[in-house]
Amino acid sequence: MRFISATSSDGVIERLFTLPFTFGEIPGVLWTPEDAAGARPLILMGHGGGQHKKAPGIVARARQFVAEGGFAVVAIDAPNHGDRPKTEQFARIAADLRSAVATGEDLAARLATMHTFLTDQAVAEWRAVLTAIGELDVVGAGPAGYWGMSMGCGLGVPLVAAEPRIRAAVLGLLGVHGLAATAAQITVPVRFLLQWDDERVPRDQGLALFDALASADKTLHANPGKHGETPATETGSASRFFARHLD
Amino acid sequence: MRFISATSSDGVIERLFTLPFTFGEIPGVLWTPEDAAGARPLILMGHGGGQHKKAPGIVARARQFVAEGGFAVVAIDAPNHGDRPKTEQFARIAADLRSAVATGEDLAARLATMHTFLTDQAVAEWRAVLTAIGELDVVGAGPAGYWGMSMGCGLGVPLVAAEPRIRAAVLGLLGVHGLAATAAQITVPVRFLLQWDDERVPRDQGLALFDALASADKTLHANPGKHGETPATETGSASRFFARHLD
Repeated sequence: MRFISATSSDGVIERLFTLPFTFGEIPGVLWTPEDAAGARPLILMGHGGGQHKKAPGIVARARQFVAEGGFAVVAIDAPNHGDRPKTEQFARIAADLRSAVATGEDLAARLATMHTFLTDQAVAEWRAVLTAIGELDVVGAGPAGYWGMSMGCGLGVPLVAAEPRIRAAVLGLLGVHGLAATAAQITVPVRFLLQWDDERVPRDQGLALFDALASADKTLHANPGKHGETPATETGSASRFFARHLD
Repeated sequence: MRFISATSSDGVIERLFTLPFTFGEIPGVLWTPEDAAGARPLILMGHGGGQHKKAPGIVARARQFVAEGGFAVVAIDAPNHGDRPKTEQFARIAADLRSAVATGEDLAARLATMHTFLTDQAVAEWRAVLTAIGELDVVGAGPAGYWGMSMGCGLGVPLVAAEPRIRAAVLGLLGVHGLAATAAQITVPVRFLLQWDDERVPRDQGLALFDALASADKTLHANPGKHGETPATETGSASRFFARHLD
């Protein structure tokens, strides 16, 4: 892996990197405490559909996880997102999804199609990133957590199910469509966030995804508001959740 | 109000008291920090059906609220509970409820009957206790919170709806039966706890009570397990919730 830049502010160092892999270079960003010495738990953050590794919601939460919990946090551009090239097939799937959002058609099957199209590559890339980041002194090969909402949940469920180094996950803002069997393979502690008035994910489908998780230790946090309106207090709460399970 | 005894351990003073009121003496207990000086927010704790002011679950949470948040906490015996005399009519309602639990019959209507039977007296008594405790230097007439599960929720919903001094509430472990209209009058921040495998409260009825609350700021926390198996981490979480809204 190759580091491209490093900037420091408010006690947090942000380093852009790129990691060569099967499907081309993976662009990523790593946040660590400014005074970090020695290994620490790592949190992988998966962004939402149409977003990227430095979307404002990712950056703000990453910095809070670093500042409050002393974690290392890594985000990468998902396949076909951010700085990465887009395939024609992806563009067609994305256009179909956008048009369904605009006309108010049912999204569940289209979201599942999009996530399924990206899953194999996304899971393989996250596992390669986890290995590469784990070789840094400031992270080490300790336990990792995963945070991902919406598409970050759709790609996160198969990742968390497959990857034993991930010991706890914060997931949510997605329904059960296409994910029930994979969710039933997840046994690590999970925090699941649901927006009570989500205009994209029907309430019963979100509740059904929470229900499908096999984890004995899982908690649903539901808040009023739309898809993008998760309250800020959930970030501090997630930080304490990771601290409990990764330390 | 008359204080009967005071004991101190682990930094918390516990004082038993009795307050004369319309329906006879109200027996209560007040917990405060040992080194408390000046006013502080007060948390009212409503116990579950068949329990009392010093049930283990009440005492443990009360001591944690005092230790972590510096709050004052008060619990009283609900009408027909703990040290209070039982009426014949209450005994009949309670026997009918117990027999329905034993035979696995539907409980929703019976729980609503029990809570409705107790509500007017319970609400009036809590308001009198709030006034009396507010006159103590160590509490003062500042904001109050309410915590109550199961029957403590069934009596808490009408109390929180009626009492403007209560600015935040932790409720849960109860369904919507008989409470929808009253819940729709609650506008203060609410944390609502639901047990995903509650053998007494059907999941959809619990979700419907959360849904019925008019509060713009409300959060549902759902955890796996039965009626009595709320995880211990919810107590610290509730303590931070009260600190955010009462300080």
